[in-house]
Amino acid sequence: MTVWLVGAGPGDPGLITARGLELVRGCDALVYDRLVAPELVAEAPADALAISRDGLDQDQISALLIELASQGLEVVRLKGGDPFVFGRGGEEALALAEADVPFEVVPGVSALAAVPAAAGIPLTHRGLAAQVRVVSGRSADGEVELGPVHGAETLVLFMALNELDSLCERLLALGLDPSTPAAVIARGTCHDQEVVVDDVSGIANAAAGLPGPALVVVGEVVALRERLRGSEDRSQLYFSQSVG
Amino acid sequence: MTVWLVGAGPGDPGLITARGLELVRGCDALVYDRLVAPELVAEAPADALAISRDGLDQDQISALLIELASQGLEVVRLKGGDPFVFGRGGEEALALAEADVPFEVVPGVSALAAVPAAAGIPLTHRGLAAQVRVVSGRSADGEVELGPVHGAETLVLFMALNELDSLCERLLALGLDPSTPAAVIARGTCHDQEVVVDDVSGIANAAAGLPGPALVVVGEVVALRERLRGSEDRSQLYFSQSVG
Repeated sequence: MTVWLVGAGPGDPGLITARGLELVRGCDALVYDRLVAPELVAEAPADALAISRDGLDQDQISALLIELASQGLEVVRLKGGDPFVFGRGGEEALALAEADVPFEVVPGVSALAAVPAAAGIPLTHRGLAAQVRVVSGRSADGEVELGPVHGAETLVLFMALNELDSLCERLLALGLDPSTPAAVIARGTCHDQEVVVDDVSGIANAAAGLPGPALVVVGEVVALRERLRGSEDRSQLYFSQSVG
Repeated sequence: MTVWLVGAGPGDPGLITARGLELVRGCDALVYDRLVAPELVAEAPADALAISRDGLDQDQISALLIELASQGLEVVRLKGGDPFVFGRGGEEALALAEADVPFEVVPGVSALAAVPAAAGIPLTHRGLAAQVRVVSGRSADGEVELGPVHGAETLVLFMALNELDSLCERLLALGLDPSTPAAVIARGTCHDQEVVVDDVSGIANAAAGLPGPALVVVGEVVALRERLRGSEDRSQLYFSQSVG
């Protein structure tokens, strides 16, 4: 009995790791997030328990994992993106450690770089950005001190779509040039991906009405998209929608 | 003819994506970095060209990719970690775009979160860190303005082992509490992984002599390792050393 905390990747089911897919295919019980691709849930054995975590709070999820493991099952906890990048995997791991349940972490492809890549935007690029700052909508909205910001650092904002207007105002107040390019990528890496680009002073208006989940990227690297967008036009081809 | 810029993941060959592995297994030519696991190079077809990029500079790599594609080959460019996180994938993509060579990016698991995870350290954790800053040894050494730093933000330093002493001095000068915990993880996710933990004022001495490649993590999340280290003791088991 082990609980495997597995990252499912950013959306496209082909972006799960080989090791993660092997574990899903061999598990007794699968507990999965709402945003995990249904193609991956379908990879669990036909006689495995498959349980959506929808409607469970964090404490209930941890209790469920402990209960399943205590029945002697091999449990895969399949989480969107990477478990340890805004994935609350640490909380689940701590609960398992405190209950003396053996657990293992299998990292996944985070939306952090994969979603910008799917829109033709590298996070770092020689001469443009050698530094990346990653914040959540909540932290950027005052919980954490951001300090000075500038376009030579790439900013990636998770869970920021709803507060984008106030976030951008805050970035401008911290010294960011209003003409710094920004992008909002909704449903990144999926076949229905949508991308909106504007400068940081206009991006909140331009992105109004986009569906979640969405990732926001701010910085000079966004301008590379124009030169690399050939790739994004083929996104339906190159992010395979089938599991390899 | 397409050039696929594929992330190989952080070290453990099981952490390549399902899609990336499928492409390696079907390619005509494989151009791979020195740090890519030999198990992945061995997955290319027996009659495929397999070319190490060792000894080639960035311009020569781009020229090689263009030349191979112009022969009508399906080319996989297999890069350590993720192509767009300190991977210089953007430079190769731009060169291909300018030469009108079709290319696609397949993201990989970056060392960014996977290597700390392999040492029992989540990058974000409710109440401890809701923000991550990622810098390279070079940028942190003066190229980019860091601004104020504090332990409630997780700092991840790539390619920083050689300059760790001066980097830590710089962080302290920027206001970081000298007792902030720090970790250096060498050969992360591999079976010969080594981890050294100390506070930021002592970490450079403690990590002296560790082999590269290494990732440095600074912030309060490092303290979670003590409570999650059960996982790291089993690192040889849970990061599968075979491709699934």
